[in-house]
This record gives sequence, structure tokens and C-alpha cells, in this order.
Amino acid sequence: MTERFVYDVPVRWSDMDAYGHVNNARFLTLYEEARVAMFFVGARKHGLGSFEEGIVIARHEIDYLRPVDYGDPVRVEMWISEVRAAAFTVSYELYDGDVLASRAKSVCVPYHLAQGHPRRLSEAEREFLRPYVAS
Amino acid sequence: MTERFVYDVPVRWSDMDAYGHVNNARFLTLYEEARVAMFFVGARKHGLGSFEEGIVIARHEIDYLRPVDYGDPVRVEMWISEVRAAAFTVSYELYDGDVLASRAKSVCVPYHLAQGHPRRLSEAEREFLRPYVAS
Amino acid sequence: MTERFVYDVPVRWSDMDAYGHVNNARFLTLYEEARVAMFFVGARKHGLGSFEEGIVIARHEIDYLRPVDYGDPVRVEMWISEVRAAAFTVSYELYDGDVLASRAKSVCVPYHLAQGHPRRLSEAEREFLRPYVAS
Amino acid sequence: MTERFVYDVPVRWSDMDAYGHVNNARFLTLYEEARVAMFFVGARKHGLGSFEEGIVIARHEIDYLRPVDYGDPVRVEMWISEVRAAAFTVSYELYDGDVLASRAKSVCVPYHLAQGHPRRLSEAEREFLRPYVAS
Repeated sequence: MTERFVYDVPVRWSDMDAYGHVNNARFLTLYEEARVAMFFVGARKHGLGSFEEGIVIARHEIDYLRPVDYGDPVRVEMWISEVRAAAFTVSYELYDGDVLASRAKSVCVPYHLAQGHPRRLSEAEREFLRPYVAS
Repeated sequence: MTERFVYDVPVRWSDMDAYGHVNNARFLTLYEEARVAMFFVGARKHGLGSFEEGIVIARHEIDYLRPVDYGDPVRVEMWISEVRAAAFTVSYELYDGDVLASRAKSVCVPYHLAQGHPRRLSEAEREFLRPYVAS
Repeated sequence: MTERFVYDVPVRWSDMDAYGHVNNARFLTLYEEARVAMFFVGARKHGLGSFEEGIVIARHEIDYLRPVDYGDPVRVEMWISEVRAAAFTVSYELYDGDVLASRAKSVCVPYHLAQGHPRRLSEAEREFLRPYVAS
Repeated sequence: MTERFVYDVPVRWSDMDAYGHVNNARFLTLYEEARVAMFFVGARKHGLGSFEEGIVIARHEIDYLRPVDYGDPVRVEMWISEVRAAAFTVSYELYDGDVLASRAKSVCVPYHLAQGHPRRLSEAEREFLRPYVAS
């Protein structure tokens, strides 16, 4: 059984651009809020601070399915779609009410910020990811 | 001979996040500035206002190769990597000095904003894209 | 008895700047979120849509008392500190937990967006403001 | 003879909000860009790095005179309108072409970031400010 990490992200009035919809670039900030909630705040509750000390984004992919407007929070559902030795992929779905408005993927690389190079996932990190792994 | 549309995008101090580098989500805003310069301001100089009246982003892909810091403007080079009946793909390279720091692609869909549906590329639009088409 | 309009504004990770605190310019966006909640969303519930159709900001003043970090939402408390024929002033206090972190004032001018000029407050607007008026 | 520090700040397409003008909160970011150019980049050229290591903003005032739209860079002119033992005030005018679109003031406090408390202006800092002092 795979779990999803679900997080409501409030939309700000200032997220809209001159077209009156949430700006497409700003979606990455909404996804970031959800990712930070899972890997910084959420992981910290499991005693795991190593993600917060360094995850580097190697790649994002975002598909836009429906425009999103200012109003209720959007719901971001996340799972882990790939785990490699020194990288993992977060997959997201972003819902506006019941409507799937966007999908995204982020390739995340654990990083020694102090030493300035990528590193392998630790066993504690793999343990944290495990319930969310799905293809 | 294929041309590239080249545009310098100034980096703002506020583009940096708490890690002291340009925030990964903010790269999409830097790419957006370059895309707007090409398809709104640049196309308008060719008497072509139809992109400005409606392009919808269907998809972005971004690869992060090197961190970028506050300082000199970054240089974005753009070309058209695919043209279909009702969509085209912009490819980008983002240079920090001589260093290729990021690559991206955006799938763009011409849109009737008033009527609320996608539309085919016009002949004038195809003409504008032609010099930049490369695979 | 004067009421305050109280609104919790979530702080985003991306609100932090390179110093690791919420950026001072971003406070205006947090205040904006609260103001929009009162004058757009809140007023609409009272059947009053005229603020949403046009308020222009003539002036902001912001005092910074304590740094704010990413974490829990901040609480913004608002009241109306001045009402004139064609302008009113919103006063704010921003609390981080129990700590007063910032104070601000915004001079707001009702505006005919279509006709492009300021206008006087309507009686319905004065009625909406009345419970919040305090010096 | 008083000098003004003059700096052109490019306006981004994403600085516009749903009303199609540069968002009022975003003006503080435009002013910030100019201030950073003067006190971080500019002062560094005079061998003065102490502002960059710590200036805290105690207060902003902004007056909005004319809306600003996406297009050419705005020109920010800055001078120092007050110098006290442990604070100074930057005054700004923001021009859109020949039109004065906004005025602002920022009270800046030199700060020991490491020790966490305000400090007095150094003699080298006073020297840097001197040519720009005007009431």
C-alpha cells in the first residue's frame, strides 16, 4: 500500500499574473511549498534533518492541464516515483477542488552543502521515502 | 542557417532564496522574461501581436546544471525545437558568463483567449518562427 | 466597541531572502493577502463588490520591529484608522505568535477603473468600514 | 553640491498583477534592487563591504503617484535625507520615462549580524554617504 503526502497550499492574490490566472512559473513555488512541507517540516518530525541541510533540484517537469485562479487553497498530492543511489524523483498532482489542474516531477539530489558535492541517500532517508514509493 | 534569439535577463537580489543562490522556481521567471521578449516585444516589432493576445503554456521541462548567484545578467538563448499544427516548443539555454547553467523547454499553445479554446498557428506566426527552427 | 479584522497569512519558504528571514519587501505581500481577504473576499460576503472593482493604493508605511522566519502563519489584525470623503486608511499589526513583528498603514483610494479616476466612498462602503473604525 | 545615485531597474512582465500594472508591493522590490546596487555593489567598489554584511530595514514609506506598466526600465534616483548615529534614511524617486511615478524613504540600521544587535555608523560609512546627503 502506497501512501501519498497530501498538503494544502493557499493561493495568494499576487500569484495571479496579468491574465488573471495563477502564473505558470508560480506553480513551481506552490509545488515547492508542498515539497518543503514533506521533506523539511515533515521529515524533521521523524527526526530527519538531513534533507533540509541539502537537497539540490536537478530537474523539474510540469504539465498544465487547467488554469487555476485565486481562491481556495490547492491540494498537492505527492509520492516518490523513483529511488536511485544518489537521487530520487518526487511526483505531484495539483488539485483545484476536484479538478486535476497540473502534474509535475522533480528530480532531487541529496547534497553535502558544506563539502559542495552530491552524496548517496542515507538509510534513514530511504526509510522515510519507503511508504511513498510508487511507480 | 538557424538563428537563436538571445536575451540578457538581469538577476535580482531577491531572486536568491535562503540558500543564497537563485531559487530554482525563479528560473522559470527568468525564462519567462526571455520568452516574453521574443514572443511579445520581439514579435510586435514584426507587426505580429497574436502571440501576446494568447499563448498558453502546456508544459515546462527544466534541467539545472550549475547554481546561479546574484550578479551580472544571465544570457538566455532560444530556438524553436518543434512546430506542430497547434503547438510549438521553445528550447532554451541559460548561460552565466560562459557557463551553461540550465536548459529548458516550453510547449506553447496558441489560444483564443476570448473564445476560450486552443487554435492553430497562423501563417504569419509560422513565418515568425521559421528562422529559429532547429532540432 | 471597535472590531478588528483578523486573518492568518501562511508564510512561504520562498518568502525568505538570502539572509534567511522573510524579506522586508515581502511583508507588503503578506499585508496584501490580509487586505484582499477583508476588502475583496470579506466585503463580497456582505454583498459589496465595489472595492474589488477598484481600490488604488496611494501610500504604504511599514515599521519592522522583529524579523520573521519561515514557519507558522503570521496573524494580521486590521482596522480603519481614518475615513475621508474619497480615501480611507487601513492600519495593521502583524504578529508572529505573541510577538508584534511589524506595523503598517495603507492609504486606499476608491477608483472607477473603467473611467480612470478616483471616486467618493459610497454609503454601502462606509457601512462596511464602520465597525472597524478606530483611531 | 549633492549627488544622486541613479540606477535603472528593468521591470519584469511578472511584476504586473491581475490589474495589468506593476503590483504596488512589487515597487519595494524595485527600490530594493536600486538600494542593493548602491549599498552592496556600489559601496564594494569603494572597498566598503560593511553595509553588505548587515543593514536592517527599520521602516519604509512609499507614495504611489502614477501606475507603472511592463516596458522600459524605471529609473530610480536616490539620496540620503538623514544621517544619525546609528541609522540613516534613503530617499528615492522612481521615474517611468520623464514621469515621477513614486517616491519612497527607507530607514536603514547598520547591524552586527553575527552579534545580533544594531551598531553605529563607521567613519568609512559616513564618508561613503557624504556626497549623497541632502534634505
